Amino acid sequence: MKILITGGGGFLGQKVARTLLARGDINEIVLFDIAEPSTGIQDARVRFVKGEVSDVGAINALIVNGGKPEIGGIFHLAAVVSGQAESDFELGMRVNLDGLRNVLEAARLAGNRPRLLFSSSIAVFGTPLPDVITDATTPTPQASYGVQKLIGEWLVADYHRKGFIDGRAVRIPTVSVRPGKANAAASSFASAVIREPLNGIDYGCPVPPETLMWMCGPRDVVSNLVRAFDLPSEAWGVLRAVSLPGIVVSVAEMVASLRKLGGEAAARRVTFIKDERIQAIVKTWAAKLETPRALGMGFTTSGSMDQIVAEYIEDERIKI
Amino acid sequence: MKILITGGGGFLGQKVARTLLARGDINEIVLFDIAEPSTGIQDARVRFVKGEVSDVGAINALIVNGGKPEIGGIFHLAAVVSGQAESDFELGMRVNLDGLRNVLEAARLAGNRPRLLFSSSIAVFGTPLPDVITDATTPTPQASYGVQKLIGEWLVADYHRKGFIDGRAVRIPTVSVRPGKANAAASSFASAVIREPLNGIDYGCPVPPETLMWMCGPRDVVSNLVRAFDLPSEAWGVLRAVSLPGIVVSVAEMVASLRKLGGEAAARRVTFIKDERIQAIVKTWAAKLETPRALGMGFTTSGSMDQIVAEYIEDERIKI
Repeated sequence: MKILITGGGGFLGQKVARTLLARGDINEIVLFDIAEPSTGIQDARVRFVKGEVSDVGAINALIVNGGKPEIGGIFHLAAVVSGQAESDFELGMRVNLDGLRNVLEAARLAGNRPRLLFSSSIAVFGTPLPDVITDATTPTPQASYGVQKLIGEWLVADYHRKGFIDGRAVRIPTVSVRPGKANAAASSFASAVIREPLNGIDYGCPVPPETLMWMCGPRDVVSNLVRAFDLPSEAWGVLRAVSLPGIVVSVAEMVASLRKLGGEAAARRVTFIKDERIQAIVKTWAAKLETPRALGMGFTTSGSMDQIVAEYIEDERIKI
Repeated sequence: MKILITGGGGFLGQKVARTLLARGDINEIVLFDIAEPSTGIQDARVRFVKGEVSDVGAINALIVNGGKPEIGGIFHLAAVVSGQAESDFELGMRVNLDGLRNVLEAARLAGNRPRLLFSSSIAVFGTPLPDVITDATTPTPQASYGVQKLIGEWLVADYHRKGFIDGRAVRIPTVSVRPGKANAAASSFASAVIREPLNGIDYGCPVPPETLMWMCGPRDVVSNLVRAFDLPSEAWGVLRAVSLPGIVVSVAEMVASLRKLGGEAAARRVTFIKDERIQAIVKTWAAKLETPRALGMGFTTSGSMDQIVAEYIEDERIKI
């Protein structure tokens, strides 16, 4: 099978590609992104194509391929992150909404009913929120990013229902610990509060210690993305989006895990410098979820914040 | 105030225009539609502009008006109906999704934060359905029309939250009795089963007598649309869409009201000729709703099917 990963230059896109390459059923992977992957994947089956998902010509060239479609599976991970979608409304709409529509339309026109996995987000939930979000909770997003993700879920569902694609969507928790630099995601602090101190850098956390987050580690989200792609279509039923499992962690608990696994000096590098804009977005997010549907479908979750920090130290070869 | 009514050539658009003209605060009404109103409105304050909402240039010309916006209020009623949105996917997406986006973008670019009322539909609810839909039920549309309406609600909500418009949306029940000819709406039978026999025409109903519908009469929906436009923004709170009240009526009860008010000969003109395609759409719709939120906001409902039929006979001057 030939696979397209939009946002394939990103952290998750590259990890998904490496996981797929490790098995025998993939002939070619196209990584489509605005920037080349920072860590090159040395594999003859991987091709990088530079572009933005809002470029309908580029997307059609890849997916419709002049009426001879070759792409059998699409991981649609490309997105403008939450903070940026809020500060640059036009960019968010162009990439998060028009970009997905371009991919869906190309898939429809290709006519080979490709399998498409859309990475949605728990940002589809917003105030007013119940204490615990369940599989039955109505998504009521209160930021443009969450609105665009919710709209995306329903576009994927309708293209699926019409038989244009085999579509499925997963709502990803906040992923921590992401390597690299802080980005414009409002959730960026959830990685930075661990990563920066472990790399010897002071960090001013924009939200208070009692802030709760619904989180999972990179290993889990990558294996869950691949599982979501692999599952038979029937596993989903009529509702094509599902909230992935995670753990509830406070920022104070993140710092405690940092102290436990990274040492006192690392923990002391964290201070709290309130950022009203970030806090306003984050406090509209869901923090406590119950995800029996996803667990029943075989999706998994990291056990604890300690485990997430330990995995980061191991995966990124951090010296303590 | 200067008002734009998209879909202003249609049945509801014209009735809304007449209602607005009957009061003193409207300077001008622009009726925008693909076809000129069948019943011309003789009023110097009314102007008809021919076009499709998917025409971004035409929409910008009206709303942005070269950077000198004059439109203070928009009734966005233009839509491809349910049956047509299902049979012609591209047309439905172009009018119902792109058309709304054009209007919203023009309103954003105009910069004068116009008030915008979006006519959504109970078609946002689809299987799996609870026995009774409440204000807390999660919309899960199972037809392209309902998906497009739900996406529209969230676009309106986000443009409102960002301060680009004063946005609000109402989910309209099936409106019966509509005058004129049957259209491509899957719900067209709910008007035709009364209208055709009263006009001496035999009617083959595509769904069985036990089919339940969530309905309201034209008088109620028009007064509710105007109320939805008039209500202060605060009346809506964070959630910008609300399900309008209606009554639950079976097709058998529709025929009973027809018999009672139109006579035995009229009722005998109804036969049942199953249409699998129509039935497949209709059976995914919500039929029983509880709408305390709308009732608390002052929206009203016709008392009974008898009253709806009586109003049709009076409004359309039918001779029994």
